[in-house]
Amino acid sequence: MIYSVGHKNPDTDSITSAIAVADLWSKVKEATQPVAQGELAPETKFVLDKFGCEAPAIMTDATDKKIILVDHSDIAQTIDNLSKGEVVAVVDHHKLGDVTTPNPLEMWVWPVGCTGTIINAMYKFYNVEIPKNIAGIVLCAILSDTVIFKSVTTTEADKAAVAELAKIAGVADVMALGMEMFNVKSAVAGASMNDLIFRDYKDFDMSGKKVGVGQLEVVDLSVFDNIKADLYAELEKVKAEGRHSCFLLLTDIMKEGSEMLIVSDDPSVVEKAFGVAPKGTSVYLEGVMSRKKQVVPNFEKAFSA
Amino acid sequence: MIYSVGHKNPDTDSITSAIAVADLWSKVKEATQPVAQGELAPETKFVLDKFGCEAPAIMTDATDKKIILVDHSDIAQTIDNLSKGEVVAVVDHHKLGDVTTPNPLEMWVWPVGCTGTIINAMYKFYNVEIPKNIAGIVLCAILSDTVIFKSVTTTEADKAAVAELAKIAGVADVMALGMEMFNVKSAVAGASMNDLIFRDYKDFDMSGKKVGVGQLEVVDLSVFDNIKADLYAELEKVKAEGRHSCFLLLTDIMKEGSEMLIVSDDPSVVEKAFGVAPKGTSVYLEGVMSRKKQVVPNFEKAFSA
Repeated sequence: MIYSVGHKNPDTDSITSAIAVADLWSKVKEATQPVAQGELAPETKFVLDKFGCEAPAIMTDATDKKIILVDHSDIAQTIDNLSKGEVVAVVDHHKLGDVTTPNPLEMWVWPVGCTGTIINAMYKFYNVEIPKNIAGIVLCAILSDTVIFKSVTTTEADKAAVAELAKIAGVADVMALGMEMFNVKSAVAGASMNDLIFRDYKDFDMSGKKVGVGQLEVVDLSVFDNIKADLYAELEKVKAEGRHSCFLLLTDIMKEGSEMLIVSDDPSVVEKAFGVAPKGTSVYLEGVMSRKKQVVPNFEKAFSA
Repeated sequence: MIYSVGHKNPDTDSITSAIAVADLWSKVKEATQPVAQGELAPETKFVLDKFGCEAPAIMTDATDKKIILVDHSDIAQTIDNLSKGEVVAVVDHHKLGDVTTPNPLEMWVWPVGCTGTIINAMYKFYNVEIPKNIAGIVLCAILSDTVIFKSVTTTEADKAAVAELAKIAGVADVMALGMEMFNVKSAVAGASMNDLIFRDYKDFDMSGKKVGVGQLEVVDLSVFDNIKADLYAELEKVKAEGRHSCFLLLTDIMKEGSEMLIVSDDPSVVEKAFGVAPKGTSVYLEGVMSRKKQVVPNFEKAFSA
């Protein structure tokens, strides 16, 4: 048995890609089961429910297991004890991370907005018809990762994949589906501050320093008005767990910009990275919506300077 | 301009893949020029001459350049100052190495016998007809890397690619072409001992130790009878340049086995890796023909134990 798994604190793309790759791999190569490294975010639950897909079981240790990594290639984000298992494939749309392997493997890595776009191409490459419900969840992952095509990470390939998948999944109004999903994602009621920070959170190794970057994408930043102080206090706690810096992006997908909460041993990296001086403990970054393309590369440069 | 480049001490696959990827990339993406990190081996010269392809220019520094890596993903084997350039793509058939990138990229990595097999699939994927002369050199790379299908690294995909490419290149007798090529490769006359060691040589980082593994594939080991002592003396010099170990595989492609010359700070790794005790300064490894699949993984395990 092979296990397909996305990154820690799984987002919709990590879960739907694990499910889709497991389906495809089982059909063309070897029996594969999708697993998740943690609980599903509300958006992801909504997506799986909507198209009638089962949530993957949780698995956090790769010892003696054959593994397909989806949606990441960084050790900090991957399953525990990966080096005691065997990576047989990687399907990803991020920068190339620090995972290495002792054996040859298969990699599908494209600079597109979502792993789902690559998976759609893989089904075509292997000449397998993508099942209707999997087409639906992969479609949602692309809408989520590209913020309904508003993110700078969006490519023509993502748009083409959405058009193809919508036809197979029987989705008539893609934009309406996207807004429905982001309304679910915007809900903060009932979630603890810790839940909110880790809902879409990644740790990075930047020039030897552990740096965490969380992101909450909402349709209106006013949902944070009453909880911002509590969110910041919780972010300080997360930072105190051995990190050099913790940043939380509060992204307004309609206004297309992000307020970033800052806790850092060296807050000057923020101005170095973005050319904007923070006001107190936060900064507003006009036009910044993509952690992958606009935030992480700038921080990596600033940290290595 | 983008530059496609294979590993240091380029073999035929590294050169022909750089040429083919540059052709394809120029047609579907952006102008790309093939370059090489060093002089061509006699086998590679024979192949380029045979099909009328130009040798790539030599380039050894990636500073401020956009780069496509072919046939490797290890820092020890890649072009100097890669981190000061930008890796836009990787096309490879080896284990995943330690190259990382700050930006998303395109990767075509498959567990097949030769990068050429992946490149044949890429031409089909991008719906571009592979030019006749490039089909010829890529065909030769596959025959070379798979030792005319005798290597354990050979896959069905490699055989299928050779059949397709032979048709396009107009090669009627693939086996005869392979033997012609290996006869060129077997010639040791006129080459210095240093040339022979570095003809197909790679450095690896194994648990923090620098380990070099060279390989000479010949149709009859007797070509080494008169020069083995000189080869060994030269190998000791190469080892003394800051390496923990240097190994030279003398591979008999007809008998399908390798004599390995050993220079190491800890020769016990050889028995740990292969379960065979060396006789003096060398060991015969029955059935071992592939550095990638049979030698490097075993050494990596032995060095990490």
